Amino acid sequence: MRVLGVDPGLTRCGLGVVDGLPGRRARLVHVSVARSEPGLDVDQRLLLIERALEECLEEHAPDAVAVERVFAQHNVSTVMGTAQVAGLAMVAAARRRVPVALHTPSEVKAAVTGSGRADKAQVQTMVARLLGLADLPRPADAADALALAICHLWRPAGALGAPQREPGALTTAQRQWAAAEQAARRRA
Amino acid sequence: MRVLGVDPGLTRCGLGVVDGLPGRRARLVHVSVARSEPGLDVDQRLLLIERALEECLEEHAPDAVAVERVFAQHNVSTVMGTAQVAGLAMVAAARRRVPVALHTPSEVKAAVTGSGRADKAQVQTMVARLLGLADLPRPADAADALALAICHLWRPAGALGAPQREPGALTTAQRQWAAAEQAARRRA
Repeated sequence: MRVLGVDPGLTRCGLGVVDGLPGRRARLVHVSVARSEPGLDVDQRLLLIERALEECLEEHAPDAVAVERVFAQHNVSTVMGTAQVAGLAMVAAARRRVPVALHTPSEVKAAVTGSGRADKAQVQTMVARLLGLADLPRPADAADALALAICHLWRPAGALGAPQREPGALTTAQRQWAAAEQAARRRA
Repeated sequence: MRVLGVDPGLTRCGLGVVDGLPGRRARLVHVSVARSEPGLDVDQRLLLIERALEECLEEHAPDAVAVERVFAQHNVSTVMGTAQVAGLAMVAAARRRVPVALHTPSEVKAAVTGSGRADKAQVQTMVARLLGLADLPRPADAADALALAICHLWRPAGALGAPQREPGALTTAQRQWAAAEQAARRRA
């Protein structure tokens, strides 16, 4: 199962591809940040980001695309561009008949750190640990894209195309995550 | 000069194509409303609207695309879908190297009715009058798309690719509009 996570943004759009199987450690396939200059017209900025998304889909052929769910209440100055890039990611996947899932920022944080209110540093640290990376993924957009992909790989069984997970087949990191998630739910 | 006006929306997206030249009455080329069912997943809805946009661009080959500028403060329940469809329209134009312009709702209303606070019925009435249509364009999204196209055709000289307008070359409707616009500016 290969998932492309997209942390949408017009200035920086995180793209992270992760492979995973039940009972196996998730594996980093690709991570990058697509960028566009704020000085360009919006249509040209969207076109640059769309090309990067298309290249990533073409090269890595994910089985699913996980996109951060954008809310209207987010930062008003950037939310329009963020929503538009999220839309581009969704439609680029739909054109290729690749299933799309939306995950909220707190779902993603809870999946990788155990807390829906984790900060960016915690997300970077846990993404590096879960993927066995020597260095922290930077910038934060790159880590967030990988976290989205991991969140989607580990979503509860029964969700869209979810791999069934046997408790005995979990990796150490997955067991840690499951315990942290349960703890977060108890606190919630 | 042929302009495609796009009134973006996920449930109803107005598409209006208008031809115009300085000193000539604007002419209706095409008007339609692309729709997607609210019950579908967002990625599938975006794909349906994108296909309608692509078909319209392919068939009518506009010289410019005018899209309503969406603000984050708009109706929160629909603004994300509206922003995403606006993004699709911009990027579909950019892919074909067609210039894109954004116009605010009040700019559009002022262009066709003389008042930035005109209601939907006034916009429908004036669009029908300006294009010499026997019937009002319906639904409102169709009229708004045509109004966007007309607004772009009549935008002040000096704007993106604007045809230079000689005062003596204005049609009656254009003179009325210019007077109304000046009046609106005086009131503002």
